[in-house]
Amino acid sequence: LEKLYVIKVGGNIIDDPVKLSSFLKDFASIDEKKILVHGGGKLATKLAVQLGIPQKMNEGRRITDAETLKIITMVYAGYINKNIVAQLQANGCQAVGICGADGNLILAHKRNHPEIDYGYVGDIDKVSAEGFTQFLALGFVPVIAPLTHDGKGLLLNTNADTIAQEISKSMSASFDVTLIFSFEKSGVLTNAEDDHSVIDNLNPEAYKELKEKNIIFAGMIPKLDNAFTALDHGVKQVIVGKAEQLRQLIVNAAGTKITNET
Amino acid sequence: LEKLYVIKVGGNIIDDPVKLSSFLKDFASIDEKKILVHGGGKLATKLAVQLGIPQKMNEGRRITDAETLKIITMVYAGYINKNIVAQLQANGCQAVGICGADGNLILAHKRNHPEIDYGYVGDIDKVSAEGFTQFLALGFVPVIAPLTHDGKGLLLNTNADTIAQEISKSMSASFDVTLIFSFEKSGVLTNAEDDHSVIDNLNPEAYKELKEKNIIFAGMIPKLDNAFTALDHGVKQVIVGKAEQLRQLIVNAAGTKITNET
Repeated sequence: LEKLYVIKVGGNIIDDPVKLSSFLKDFASIDEKKILVHGGGKLATKLAVQLGIPQKMNEGRRITDAETLKIITMVYAGYINKNIVAQLQANGCQAVGICGADGNLILAHKRNHPEIDYGYVGDIDKVSAEGFTQFLALGFVPVIAPLTHDGKGLLLNTNADTIAQEISKSMSASFDVTLIFSFEKSGVLTNAEDDHSVIDNLNPEAYKELKEKNIIFAGMIPKLDNAFTALDHGVKQVIVGKAEQLRQLIVNAAGTKITNET
Repeated sequence: LEKLYVIKVGGNIIDDPVKLSSFLKDFASIDEKKILVHGGGKLATKLAVQLGIPQKMNEGRRITDAETLKIITMVYAGYINKNIVAQLQANGCQAVGICGADGNLILAHKRNHPEIDYGYVGDIDKVSAEGFTQFLALGFVPVIAPLTHDGKGLLLNTNADTIAQEISKSMSASFDVTLIFSFEKSGVLTNAEDDHSVIDNLNPEAYKELKEKNIIFAGMIPKLDNAFTALDHGVKQVIVGKAEQLRQLIVNAAGTKITNET
């Protein structure tokens, strides 16, 4: 099977023009087929504050009301997505910036939670592997903003890690997929304060233990749940690491390798 | 040659959800190959005002400074583009929302004016007919936000009428192209106040005369200049008319037909 990298680049890197630019240069230099999924960063929240739109939270999770969805669509699919595309193009990469609504690539439904209304948040039903494969076959590099749609005209705010995982799973039927979650840290750490405390390999047993000891916590848990889910569904490799080390991450020479091996 | 419609939908329609929705339904129902180019509407100006960003004008033309470009990228390529795509998808149309930076489809340079610095405004150098043809061959319907890039990382605000004209010209080597400029009026009018005063056919001689008599003026002039330029470069038909009459416009049963015939 042909190699495919699905690379997620996370929040804090998006907000740092120097780091983002360096990351994009490295991303552009990858010879194999590749898909980039980007997060949102802090600009959406900043813009909401500037516009006086209150950010509704429920147990630490943002509620995406209609005004917030509008801002997210502007910032994620507009400003961030197109600036990434323009920079990748400047580095000779045939980037095409799209979201899950485009080409019906990612179909989702509005989250149906028994107690909490998360608003315009999407849970993914289907990734069009055919659509992504067509883009890749033409030499295009999809750059995905974290929005999906319900096929009935509604855009939905969708977690970028989950998008990366679902694309990886869906593409693994016809590609040898490596999924990379890249962000500001060097990998999964045993000490969140010490960027040198990287765990080289993490399997489900070790993950369970580190969660119980509260060494792995907060935002890292859904990310790693996404990673293990991907491995359980045909994705060949999942690596978590620092965006600035992308060139090492893709050859498994840095970061944390998530593995199902014991 | 296979038929291709390049359809521009203009400002005032973008700001009217009911008219836009009806237009998009008609657009989706066109069986032939098609490309949609949309304008910006008033949301960008509204957002700039809300954010306290002064709108700099020079002789009635907006200057696109860095902050304005940011807003335009958010509103045009984000909010408007993705909402159009989601609606088209809901109507069964395989829309893909992109701008000129995506896939390097429209290369431009920052306008170089001897006296006025228009800021981040692009004049088009090259449309990738190959790229558009690839999208169309896959059954995708390109939906173009009026932004281009310079290939060096810069996004550029670019007139949507001009984008539609340049795409039409470029595609006319391999398609039988009909270019439609659709907006809130019924066509080119002999009396701007009377929507029934539509000129059925307009050739260069009549255009010259109507300009001299000040019957055609203001924003209609660059639109018609674009129309005649398109006809001079291989575009088969150019029609100007009301967005709500799209189904009649495409069969030349409404609006003004721009023609080189005397």
